Amino acid sequence: MAISINRRAFSSLIASALIVPIRAAVHANQSDQPSAHDMSNTPEEWTGKERIYMLAYPGMTALDLVGPQYMFASLMGAEVKVIAKDSKPIVSDTGLTIMPDATFNELPEQITLIFAPGGTTGTLNAMRDAETIAFLKMAGARAEYVTSVCTGSMLLAKAGLLEGYKATSHWLTHPALENFGAIPTEGRVVIDRNRITGAGVSAGLDFGLSLVGKFRDQNYAESVQLLCEYAPEPPYNSGSQETAKPEQVHMLQSMLGGFVDLMKAEA
Amino acid sequence: MAISINRRAFSSLIASALIVPIRAAVHANQSDQPSAHDMSNTPEEWTGKERIYMLAYPGMTALDLVGPQYMFASLMGAEVKVIAKDSKPIVSDTGLTIMPDATFNELPEQITLIFAPGGTTGTLNAMRDAETIAFLKMAGARAEYVTSVCTGSMLLAKAGLLEGYKATSHWLTHPALENFGAIPTEGRVVIDRNRITGAGVSAGLDFGLSLVGKFRDQNYAESVQLLCEYAPEPPYNSGSQETAKPEQVHMLQSMLGGFVDLMKAEA
Repeated sequence: MAISINRRAFSSLIASALIVPIRAAVHANQSDQPSAHDMSNTPEEWTGKERIYMLAYPGMTALDLVGPQYMFASLMGAEVKVIAKDSKPIVSDTGLTIMPDATFNELPEQITLIFAPGGTTGTLNAMRDAETIAFLKMAGARAEYVTSVCTGSMLLAKAGLLEGYKATSHWLTHPALENFGAIPTEGRVVIDRNRITGAGVSAGLDFGLSLVGKFRDQNYAESVQLLCEYAPEPPYNSGSQETAKPEQVHMLQSMLGGFVDLMKAEA
Repeated sequence: MAISINRRAFSSLIASALIVPIRAAVHANQSDQPSAHDMSNTPEEWTGKERIYMLAYPGMTALDLVGPQYMFASLMGAEVKVIAKDSKPIVSDTGLTIMPDATFNELPEQITLIFAPGGTTGTLNAMRDAETIAFLKMAGARAEYVTSVCTGSMLLAKAGLLEGYKATSHWLTHPALENFGAIPTEGRVVIDRNRITGAGVSAGLDFGLSLVGKFRDQNYAESVQLLCEYAPEPPYNSGSQETAKPEQVHMLQSMLGGFVDLMKAEA
């Protein structure tokens, strides 16, 4: 379940909920959307005009993007678009295929937020792709907020967008931020001026919900949290280096250490 | 970051991590995949042959599907496919576009698991779609496990797959399960024999990780949890009816109550 992406979609959600459109006529002229549905129970300050662009690239981790996308899409009035180098389908590292909504050349002159998801080899390839890095530089200059989840911060770092900024990343690549002049900082969500970075994969939910609170207010964000029933109960307790068994930490380090070194070499 | 979807993808991940393929020759004949990479550090029991099919339909909540998809894709050797009525792009309720990997007529005779994600109007439409419900009946008969997240359980219920079973759903539709002969049961993840249902949206992560533990073992699941850094820190504390403010609960109930009634009417 999600609060839908824009005023029109939200209106149809309300319609689907059969709320009687009793005051629709009164409000008809207050909306630029063709709508016969009742928006009268929605406070005006709940609707915004954010332009949110989320980078997608082959081999990205889909969950890095889809967690925040859920939260961003709950911002009534916001435009949330997945943007990629071209319009081809994008296959994630888990084999999920996502279609972009826009291509690099369609980025508006001013946007509210640019977001970069992470991954492993796909992210390394993206770091090495001049066009992707040039796009991020451009988007970083046009955006009010420059953001990432997981190893997406390595892409921002490669584009020079984290130099002198506190930032976080996936725990495996966290130390590598320093190679790019960023200040590796502990935290599920790290905010330094207009740079907002989230930790690994699942941190995208905390990251996205934090931003909903920032762009609207606490009551709005709490309602979204209730809608997506975000009262997590992980069945195990090994989500961080501190709580996982040392041999699990070592296994992933040995499995992915070389990959981290390759990322560092891109500095 | 994700442990990749199959043996070949996992091999290339290992390759990307630059683990020296020193014993590749020894193991070359032990794999049916063309691979020159070292799999020797992976215990044999970590690789399975699950066939996991995830239903997708227009208006579904993408995060309901993508959370579990991440977890399922971490099962080395498992086949994880998104299956839909036809091969057209599927637009989720948050405006994310996903491409299916297979269509209903491509479902194998035997599968390990069928999964249904939730949504609002999209899910109601799917409940009313004879072809989708017939598919779920068929898949339910062919699957070892019949599963859902969020209002996906309403689809299972409509297909008669939860009659006499304990199950959960999104908190808003939780009471509606009873209309279909299911036994509404509190829980983030509810297991009754081979029916496994998760609560709303974000519960997909807990649901998926639980199944990783079931299909492999605790050590495997804990390693996956560490890989996706699933140590949640919601910035607010309103993820359930118990912790949210009463006016937030009432707002969502009044917004979506009619929708819940329409679902009940499908019983």
